[in-house]
Amino acid sequence: MLDSLTIALDAMGGDQAPDIVIEGASLTNIRHPDTEFRIYGDEAVIRPLLDKHAALSAVSTIVHTDNAISADMKPSQALRSGRASSMGMAITAVKEGEAAAAVSAGNTGALLALSKFILRMMPGIDRPALVALMPTRDGETAMLDLGANVECSDENLVQFAVMGAAYVRLVQGLSRPKVGLLNIGSEELKGHESIRLAADRLREADLSYEFVGFVEGDDIGFGKADVVVADGFTGNIALKTVEGTARLILELFQRAFRNSLLSKLGYLLARRALRTLRDHLDPNTHNGGMMLGLNGLVIKSHGGASAAGYASAIDVAIELAKGNLQERIAADLAALGAGENEPAAEEAASA
Amino acid sequence: MLDSLTIALDAMGGDQAPDIVIEGASLTNIRHPDTEFRIYGDEAVIRPLLDKHAALSAVSTIVHTDNAISADMKPSQALRSGRASSMGMAITAVKEGEAAAAVSAGNTGALLALSKFILRMMPGIDRPALVALMPTRDGETAMLDLGANVECSDENLVQFAVMGAAYVRLVQGLSRPKVGLLNIGSEELKGHESIRLAADRLREADLSYEFVGFVEGDDIGFGKADVVVADGFTGNIALKTVEGTARLILELFQRAFRNSLLSKLGYLLARRALRTLRDHLDPNTHNGGMMLGLNGLVIKSHGGASAAGYASAIDVAIELAKGNLQERIAADLAALGAGENEPAAEEAASA
Repeated sequence: MLDSLTIALDAMGGDQAPDIVIEGASLTNIRHPDTEFRIYGDEAVIRPLLDKHAALSAVSTIVHTDNAISADMKPSQALRSGRASSMGMAITAVKEGEAAAAVSAGNTGALLALSKFILRMMPGIDRPALVALMPTRDGETAMLDLGANVECSDENLVQFAVMGAAYVRLVQGLSRPKVGLLNIGSEELKGHESIRLAADRLREADLSYEFVGFVEGDDIGFGKADVVVADGFTGNIALKTVEGTARLILELFQRAFRNSLLSKLGYLLARRALRTLRDHLDPNTHNGGMMLGLNGLVIKSHGGASAAGYASAIDVAIELAKGNLQERIAADLAALGAGENEPAAEEAASA
Repeated sequence: MLDSLTIALDAMGGDQAPDIVIEGASLTNIRHPDTEFRIYGDEAVIRPLLDKHAALSAVSTIVHTDNAISADMKPSQALRSGRASSMGMAITAVKEGEAAAAVSAGNTGALLALSKFILRMMPGIDRPALVALMPTRDGETAMLDLGANVECSDENLVQFAVMGAAYVRLVQGLSRPKVGLLNIGSEELKGHESIRLAADRLREADLSYEFVGFVEGDDIGFGKADVVVADGFTGNIALKTVEGTARLILELFQRAFRNSLLSKLGYLLARRALRTLRDHLDPNTHNGGMMLGLNGLVIKSHGGASAAGYASAIDVAIELAKGNLQERIAADLAALGAGENEPAAEEAASA
């Protein structure tokens, strides 16, 4: 449909918009010189920033709008008045086929509400799910749902597993990702019934991933699964708990290093190694969460992302668009449906 | 009832039992020389260990049993055959009034099952809850339920809040603890209905704690609440996620320090400060979790606890027994019940 890939950017979303957005796009432009951009926002502000990057300018079109979604706007308000905003127009570009994906670092609640409203659900998916990459010992793991749905049925969890597997196949380049369900471990204290039922279905299904069963909270960081599936309440609690614990320990480390002259000196000597670690734990390097299950790709960048972080969100958008995420999910859903609901019918037909 | 406090010890539970149990008791004995011990287990093994500590021997009675609960015994099996075990007998001593509290580092599932079976629930509490202390930036916070109940009603959560507040008042010495409900934060994505209903009740109740509302996963480590209340599924996921993230980051730090000669040298210089930090994050220094809501005190020590860790579990048992935990919970429940259920009746009576 599109000769070269076009990505829609919400230039006005994020703590340091539009500067970081344009800086980020210029970094992506070096890696993906053929990718074109439709940049939505205030042209008077964007144009001078874009003019600094000749190569990026050559593949970019600014689409002006005065309307922007503020950081504190409620989702309901965004739905009423945000269709003509830079965010709303970037999403609409995906809907209209003018862009293969949209990227925004703006207000998360508004982005989710507008994306759902404008793009609608893809066929076969009942509920959307928020997914993001989290740092692990030797790489990253994708976790979903991170808060789009408080209550989830076993059917929802199965669909999340299928979507999450398709996502990491493209973003992580894994041919056969390991998928697990977040649960509590004690034998006597089994988890919610929906999780056990979802496990039964995922165990039986013959899909292009490996179902590794239940994953506990302390497995998340150690790569037991490439995709960790949970309801949105539990997933959000786990995500925030990982973030909070990481922040706490880094703070305590800094405090420990200030403890004495010797430890200060130790810090100076080890600081390059510690910076590498901090980078690994930095959400910026794992940027590119999204809402899976919609009729189109909308990638969420962290609001406080650096240019490099924003660029990695655009990179994720490009990888997912090139890899036809939606088609992969649809194919796996079809396989799941065929394997699950109609084996008897097939046997009858072949008999 | 008891002239001096007596604590029942399951000498055979834990990875290094009975050595660590006796070592731990000898440490507590220095701080609490008047506390007496009933030590349950294999006398032939315990006696020589106890003989090394004259002061502890003088306040201890060994109650022999050949029967012990193994680490891999299922709770159902423990219920069938474990009443005469060192663990079962220590719990029974609490039931019979021979001890003010029992401490065990043994099989958690068996301990919970036997405690529930032998002691039964205290009046006014519908479900027991597992509580433990977790390290925070400037101290510790108590979290419950950590896995005793997968599904919880708003009434259960309110009772957990009352029990948790009573627990930290004694263990932490807080006169007016801050109590919060673990929830997800987004305005549009409110948590489960049970949490919102529990919040309404806790907000209205006039108890001896401060209700601080909802606490998110990333608030746990920063002391927003002294007591974090959740259903057992969510609490267990959060607990394990904290543990796993802490383990991951410490591992990554060690790896970072091995990266180069300079960083190795840095580690050597900073190692005292880092050891202080590791101690703060060590579960051993926060030992003394328990199942709240039973007709008696049973304290769970980590199975891998050091002698110091085991001693701190005994210390918790002593503090809770001296502070009359059960009576405090009962009083708060009565106040809650009076305030909640019968204001109209009271008004009618006074009219």
